Amino acid sequence: VPLYQLQMIGTAVFAVTGVLAVNRRGLDVFGAGVLGIVTALGGGTLRDVVLGVPVFWLHDVNYLWMAIAAAAVAFFADRRVRSTYTLLLYLDGLGAALFGVQATEKVLGLQHGATVAVAMGILTSIGGGLVRDVLAGRPTLLMSRDIYATPILIGCTGFVLARLFTSHHTWLVVAVVALMFSIRASAIHWHVSMPGWLTSDQDPVP
Amino acid sequence: VPLYQLQMIGTAVFAVTGVLAVNRRGLDVFGAGVLGIVTALGGGTLRDVVLGVPVFWLHDVNYLWMAIAAAAVAFFADRRVRSTYTLLLYLDGLGAALFGVQATEKVLGLQHGATVAVAMGILTSIGGGLVRDVLAGRPTLLMSRDIYATPILIGCTGFVLARLFTSHHTWLVVAVVALMFSIRASAIHWHVSMPGWLTSDQDPVP
Amino acid sequence: VPLYQLQMIGTAVFAVTGVLAVNRRGLDVFGAGVLGIVTALGGGTLRDVVLGVPVFWLHDVNYLWMAIAAAAVAFFADRRVRSTYTLLLYLDGLGAALFGVQATEKVLGLQHGATVAVAMGILTSIGGGLVRDVLAGRPTLLMSRDIYATPILIGCTGFVLARLFTSHHTWLVVAVVALMFSIRASAIHWHVSMPGWLTSDQDPVP
Repeated sequence: VPLYQLQMIGTAVFAVTGVLAVNRRGLDVFGAGVLGIVTALGGGTLRDVVLGVPVFWLHDVNYLWMAIAAAAVAFFADRRVRSTYTLLLYLDGLGAALFGVQATEKVLGLQHGATVAVAMGILTSIGGGLVRDVLAGRPTLLMSRDIYATPILIGCTGFVLARLFTSHHTWLVVAVVALMFSIRASAIHWHVSMPGWLTSDQDPVP
Repeated sequence: VPLYQLQMIGTAVFAVTGVLAVNRRGLDVFGAGVLGIVTALGGGTLRDVVLGVPVFWLHDVNYLWMAIAAAAVAFFADRRVRSTYTLLLYLDGLGAALFGVQATEKVLGLQHGATVAVAMGILTSIGGGLVRDVLAGRPTLLMSRDIYATPILIGCTGFVLARLFTSHHTWLVVAVVALMFSIRASAIHWHVSMPGWLTSDQDPVP
Repeated sequence: VPLYQLQMIGTAVFAVTGVLAVNRRGLDVFGAGVLGIVTALGGGTLRDVVLGVPVFWLHDVNYLWMAIAAAAVAFFADRRVRSTYTLLLYLDGLGAALFGVQATEKVLGLQHGATVAVAMGILTSIGGGLVRDVLAGRPTLLMSRDIYATPILIGCTGFVLARLFTSHHTWLVVAVVALMFSIRASAIHWHVSMPGWLTSDQDPVP
């Protein structure tokens, strides 16, 4: 199934970007490795724990090894990998989109409703990065105005709605992932952040 | 059952205070929404995950929608809501008391002992706020001298003890919640914090 | 079984060092107690939740009471306990080694593979300290160059490998714990941290 290979690629990309995000802080290979693995597997782990289903990497250890290998490469080949950072940023957006749609579909298949499915799609996409940032003492993406999670929300919501009207499943997944990735890629390319009316004031109210 | 309505009100209050707590930091509607939802549902989610029982909002999506709606109102009507902040602080204390007693009772009903029940009551009451503060990079209430969790500890302990001596269940819940709320409300009103002998020194030992 | 007593001692030591690590920050007895309990029980709780098995202290409340009692002693007898801090640092290393091997063995017994077993050994050893540091707003050990988790990784890996070649189970556990403790104790005694080639640069790449 190509989906499986895509998920492996997503896992590797998340592990690499996870290591690069923290690797300028004098931490050692163990800390960097754990943070890379957490970035790659953390979101899906949180999803499965909340759903009460077996955690996905317990019974397919390829995910764990892929995350370990990718984190090690990112640590030891830091400068070389970092020179491809812009490419990785786009791949990260693609990985987040894939993880989100795949999780939404998995949760719908477990007979949960659309709201729970979308919530779990978002948790799967951003959960690993949130845990990494908390463990690394960095501000989480929730505190920024980056357009990172919004395309996931839009795409997962669109996916559950469109499923009501179409049975062309593969094409729907492709279209939704393309939509999510386009929004994210546009935000990266044109440095767009959330508009002011969707952002709280930073100043105290007089 | 009025208990259900009370829980919905508690969920809404926690979501609103969760958003207000972080909404002066330039974050966007998505981040504020997630932090509000986490505040409202996080404690009960942690409780159910640790207990190994189905997470409560998976099968009653009203909790999730109530948290989403309340967080959105708090975000967009920030100044108006904030003017009722003192009222919300008291409501938050009431919500924490309700969540604590309800969780203690749920855990006793699952045939766990009194110690586990009290621990889970506290986790349910304060867990959501802890996760929110960690995700928002704020000091958690564990690092303060606020009298916030102590009334929960007293009330939940009192509840499991009093159950041994009385079968007037409804009145017991009312009395315990009133006790917890009185302590918290007094601490808010008179700005009481933990006494010195229950607080560690801030200075290094000479 | 002496293993049970050893685990109780490990629980107490983790609770004490957990309280001492945060007890110079003006927090109150409730916050210190929660952080001590989290340090002692958090790692095993995370392990059991990820594995989807009943959380260990739900059905043996001695763990919870031991953690509560040890945390209370550490809070109220802070100066006296702190004078034994060096001793506690070594005991903490011993506790981490015991927790790691015991968790690895538990996971192998659940028919998981070696990779998952080692990962869970590490999670059990360091998880409680990570959660404590996150809740207390301290840098986690992942961001340091301390040789704390590396002996756990070496020992747990050695344990799963050696099990393939020997059936002298008790002696194997003793040997592995001794190995892990020796590495950790050497690092404490000679102030060794991770060598430069296993540590990322702190300076930005030019």
